[in-house]
Amino acid sequence: MTQSDITLDLDDLLVIREDSKESGVVTLTLNQPKQFNALSVEVLSAMQTELDSIAQDDTIRVVVIQATGKAFCAGHNLKQMRAHDDEAFHRALFQQCSKMMLTINRMPQVVIAKVQGIATAAGCQLVAACDLAVAADDAKFATSGINVGLFCSTPAVAVSRNLPRKQAFEMLITGEFIDAHTALQYGLINRVAPAEQLDQTLQSLIKAITAKSPVAVRTGKDMFYKQLGMNIEDAYDYASEVMTGNMMADDVGEGIDAFIEKRQAVWKGC
Amino acid sequence: MTQSDITLDLDDLLVIREDSKESGVVTLTLNQPKQFNALSVEVLSAMQTELDSIAQDDTIRVVVIQATGKAFCAGHNLKQMRAHDDEAFHRALFQQCSKMMLTINRMPQVVIAKVQGIATAAGCQLVAACDLAVAADDAKFATSGINVGLFCSTPAVAVSRNLPRKQAFEMLITGEFIDAHTALQYGLINRVAPAEQLDQTLQSLIKAITAKSPVAVRTGKDMFYKQLGMNIEDAYDYASEVMTGNMMADDVGEGIDAFIEKRQAVWKGC
Amino acid sequence: MTQSDITLDLDDLLVIREDSKESGVVTLTLNQPKQFNALSVEVLSAMQTELDSIAQDDTIRVVVIQATGKAFCAGHNLKQMRAHDDEAFHRALFQQCSKMMLTINRMPQVVIAKVQGIATAAGCQLVAACDLAVAADDAKFATSGINVGLFCSTPAVAVSRNLPRKQAFEMLITGEFIDAHTALQYGLINRVAPAEQLDQTLQSLIKAITAKSPVAVRTGKDMFYKQLGMNIEDAYDYASEVMTGNMMADDVGEGIDAFIEKRQAVWKGC
Repeated sequence: MTQSDITLDLDDLLVIREDSKESGVVTLTLNQPKQFNALSVEVLSAMQTELDSIAQDDTIRVVVIQATGKAFCAGHNLKQMRAHDDEAFHRALFQQCSKMMLTINRMPQVVIAKVQGIATAAGCQLVAACDLAVAADDAKFATSGINVGLFCSTPAVAVSRNLPRKQAFEMLITGEFIDAHTALQYGLINRVAPAEQLDQTLQSLIKAITAKSPVAVRTGKDMFYKQLGMNIEDAYDYASEVMTGNMMADDVGEGIDAFIEKRQAVWKGC
Repeated sequence: MTQSDITLDLDDLLVIREDSKESGVVTLTLNQPKQFNALSVEVLSAMQTELDSIAQDDTIRVVVIQATGKAFCAGHNLKQMRAHDDEAFHRALFQQCSKMMLTINRMPQVVIAKVQGIATAAGCQLVAACDLAVAADDAKFATSGINVGLFCSTPAVAVSRNLPRKQAFEMLITGEFIDAHTALQYGLINRVAPAEQLDQTLQSLIKAITAKSPVAVRTGKDMFYKQLGMNIEDAYDYASEVMTGNMMADDVGEGIDAFIEKRQAVWKGC
Repeated sequence: MTQSDITLDLDDLLVIREDSKESGVVTLTLNQPKQFNALSVEVLSAMQTELDSIAQDDTIRVVVIQATGKAFCAGHNLKQMRAHDDEAFHRALFQQCSKMMLTINRMPQVVIAKVQGIATAAGCQLVAACDLAVAADDAKFATSGINVGLFCSTPAVAVSRNLPRKQAFEMLITGEFIDAHTALQYGLINRVAPAEQLDQTLQSLIKAITAKSPVAVRTGKDMFYKQLGMNIEDAYDYASEVMTGNMMADDVGEGIDAFIEKRQAVWKGC
C-alpha cells in the first residue's frame, strides 16, 4: 500500500494529520493500532512527507506525535522485515528511519511525543528523538530489538543521547521495560501524568511554547542541538553570535518593553 | 559608572570581595539587590577583574559567588540592553559574559555558587558555569530569556553541559522555573538546604576542599574539564600523564604516609 | 610475587577465575581481602591476563567482577606506590591500569561489577568502567585519591562518563563517599539490593543477557561505545550499517519467527 491508495476514510490513513491553524499546532497520529503503530516503510514515508511539509510552514509552531490504540509504537514492522532477505532493503529501511528521526531534530518546530501504552525499539527511539515527551503513567519503554536478535543500534543513537550511559546500556542489552516514572528519572521524557490528565499536561507544555516569540523558538532549537557537539569555547563563540543576531530581531525589543511595562508581548514573528 | 567611581561605602560596590586569608576562601558578592543583581556591563567588568586577580593568587583555594537581597541573579540587565540598538554593543556584551563564564571554568580555584531566591537567564548560567553549587530550598531556576523573545543561547552552553538533554531543552524553550530539589535531581546543583542551614552546608563543602592538597585540587580541576571533550583513549593517555606528574609532587608522599600512619597530612602546597 | 608463583591454594590467588561453561558466565574475584583488594601491579597483571583470555573465547557471554571480604576494591596499592619514587614506575602503573579499564570497555562480553563494601579511587573507576554494576545497599563509593594528595585523574575519565558533571566533580574534588542509592541516582550503578538479595539481582541481570542472541549482544556492545563519541549524523550512518549487518545474521530470522510464533528462540550464535 502506498499513500496514493489511501482513501479519505480516517480509519485507512497510516498517519492522521490535524492542523489547528489558530494555535499553530499540528498533531500527527500514528493510526495502525492493530499493528501497534509499527514503523513500516509506508508509515515512515507518510511521516516523512508530513514532517517535510510542516518544516516548510512558518505558521506551525509545535508538532505533537501521538498514536491511536493501546500502543504508542512498537518499532519496526517485523513481519515486513522478515519478508525481505536482501541487504539493500534493510539498509534502505534503517536509513529511511534515521532520516525521519533526524528530520525531527532539524525541523524548526518543537516536536513533542505524547506516549500511551508501549514504546518499543524504534518506537522508544521516536520518543528519544523528539525534543520533548510526555507520557501516561502506565506507559512503558523498551529497546527490545535484542529480544529478537537485532540489537537496537539506531535507537541506541537517540537513547544514549538522552539517558545516562549505564542506564542506556542496560535498556539496550536487556531489552527490559522501564515504567514512565523511571523514564522520567532517566531523562527519556519530560512529564508523567495519569492517562486522563495527559492532554492537560501536554496542553500546558504547548501553551508555554506557543506563547513565545516564533523567532526565539526557531533560533533556540537550531542552536541548542548545534552547540551540543562543540567544545565549550567554540560553543560560547557560536552562542554569542546567535544571541547577537537574535537580539536584533524586532520581537526582542517588544519582549523587553512588555516585560518592563508588565504587559503581554505582541510578537511580530520575525 | 566604572569601578574607579566606587567609594568605599559597601552599599555602592557592584561586587563586594571578602578575603579570608586564613582559610584561603574569597567571597564575591553581587551587590545590586534592587537590580536583582543583573549582570550589567559594569558588573561583568567588576567580576572579571576580581576573577582574573584571584586566578593569579596561589593562596586562594576556593571562591564563593553569592548575592545580596532576594535574588541571586536575574541575568543580563534588560534595561541596559534595550537602551542600545547596535549589534556591536550586544556582541561585545555576550562575548564579555561568555569570557567571564569561561574564566570560572579555567581558573585554578574551585568556584562555588551559593544561591538564594531566583537565578534566571545568565544568572542560571552562572550557577551552571560554577564548579559546584549549593542552594536554599526556596531557590528557583529558569532560563527565561525566551519569555522576552531572546532565547538563552549562551546560557544553553552551560546548562546543557549540566542537565540531561530533554530537561535542558524544556527549561530553555519554556522559560519555566524549576525548584531547588528539581535542580538537584537534574544535576544543576550539588546540595539543597533550608535557608538558615545553607551557610553550614556551604562551609562543609569548603572545608572538604581546603583540607586537600593545593596541587592536587589545582591539577584535578584543570584535568577534569580538559578530558571531558576527549575520546576515551586519549582521555586515559592524558590522565595517566597528569597522574604521573601529580604522583611526583611532594604532597603525595606526605599524603600517603599520613594515610598509612593514620595521621593528618601536612601539605607543602606544591 | 607474580602469577607463576601462585600455588593452587585458592587463598593464595590474587584473582580467582570461575567458569560456568553451562551458562557462559565467568566470575573474576579479587582475592586480597586484607589489602582491601587493592589493584597492585600484580593484581592488574592477573586481571589483564584473564580479561585478554576471556575476550578471545566466544563461549563466554558475561563476566562478573567481584571481590572477597569487606571491601570491593580500595584502588591502587598505596604502599607499593610509595615504595617507588621513579616517574617511570608510576607512568607504567597508570598506563597498565588504564589498559585494563579499556579492555573491559572493548571486550565483546558484557562485564558486570558486583559491589559490596567500599569501592574507592581506581576501585570506584572499576565500577564505572564496567558495562553494568549492581551493589549491596550498604556499599559506598568514593574517588578518594584527593585525600592523599593524588587527584583521581584516571578514575575521572570513567566516572565523568557515567555521572552528571557537577556530581562527578564533587566526588573527585571532595573525596567524600556516596551511598549505593545515591550512586544509583547519579548513574554510577544499575541496581541496588540488600546484601542477601544481591546475588539474585545479579542473576536476573545475567539471565536477561545470556538469553539473548550472542551475535546481537556482541554487535551491540561494540557499536554502543563506538557511536557515543560521534556526531549524531555520523552515528546514525554507522548505526544503520551495523543494524543492516546484524539483520543478515541467522539469529534475527529465528528471533523474529520465534516472536511471531510466540515461542522461545533458539540462537545459532552467529
